[in-house]
Amino acid sequence: MVKEGETIVSSDELAHRAGVNAAQVRKDLSYLGSFGRRGVGYNVRHLAERITIAMGLTRERTFIIVGAGKLGSALLGYAGFLDKGFRPAAAFDADEAKVGREIGGVKILPVKDIGEFVASSGTDIAILTVPAGQAQAVADTLVRAGIKAILNFAPMIVKVPPHIRIRQVELSSEMEVLAHYLNSQGD
Amino acid sequence: MVKEGETIVSSDELAHRAGVNAAQVRKDLSYLGSFGRRGVGYNVRHLAERITIAMGLTRERTFIIVGAGKLGSALLGYAGFLDKGFRPAAAFDADEAKVGREIGGVKILPVKDIGEFVASSGTDIAILTVPAGQAQAVADTLVRAGIKAILNFAPMIVKVPPHIRIRQVELSSEMEVLAHYLNSQGD
Repeated sequence: MVKEGETIVSSDELAHRAGVNAAQVRKDLSYLGSFGRRGVGYNVRHLAERITIAMGLTRERTFIIVGAGKLGSALLGYAGFLDKGFRPAAAFDADEAKVGREIGGVKILPVKDIGEFVASSGTDIAILTVPAGQAQAVADTLVRAGIKAILNFAPMIVKVPPHIRIRQVELSSEMEVLAHYLNSQGD
Repeated sequence: MVKEGETIVSSDELAHRAGVNAAQVRKDLSYLGSFGRRGVGYNVRHLAERITIAMGLTRERTFIIVGAGKLGSALLGYAGFLDKGFRPAAAFDADEAKVGREIGGVKILPVKDIGEFVASSGTDIAILTVPAGQAQAVADTLVRAGIKAILNFAPMIVKVPPHIRIRQVELSSEMEVLAHYLNSQGD
């Protein structure tokens, strides 16, 4: 909404966009301090800042990408990450032909160097963009290397120890949900 | 789980993976017909087939990609889509230098031809991979062209009429969730 240029938003509008009820929105946001004005609404920019601070997202974070194929390369330059303070520190690939190249100023390193890089750089988030068949093995490597959070784009659920955070990006499932909607409309 | 080679699964295991309770899983799956065996569980392959049929996902569907940049190009070859029966029919870009090229056998066409292509091909799903600043205008074009479902990767929420289905892929939000987890662990 900041990007859309909106300056004031009501709890009703926030509730509608989030798919929850307005009372819940007001209650949740009250934990950030009282700054919505009854009958007026919330200042959009102020609200976004307060949420960013509350979530601890005020500092830049680096991440690595494992799998410098097409998807990995595209994500290295994804503007949405940079906008939110996420900066790629390095990319890794098992293919020696790719090692040493740069994509958008980010160097491609050999997978065997992940542990050393994580230890020396302090990077703790990895994006996994390897083929499904390699995803589990690479995730195991990341965990041993000291990575603490993984965003997995491989179309395969990988298992990690409980102290590691993992989010599965299910692009195919998103398409299936859309197809199901279309089917249920008789299309 | 089919890919993982698992053959039998209990409702407890399904519930654990889905983050819901086992009674709900058993109730939901009972609508697909009675085929879980008490004390044994569900046949994984059979269950996957029944869900696919119930969701109407048995036929191949085509989609178009608008925005043949790095992310769009990567998604044109995303194996996870093909695995699930989603096949790219065409890509569209506003950049005349890209028009006429092919990416993985898929032709890049000019954005002005979307309407004609949608009408003649019957494709009704579009993936939006344009920059944030162009997302709303392109979404409007897609709606006018007859697209019925949109998967939006642009880091910007776009508004569409109520009869159009839209899913927002929030890659930055996924990263923020991971960063928040790490922050709350005192990292």
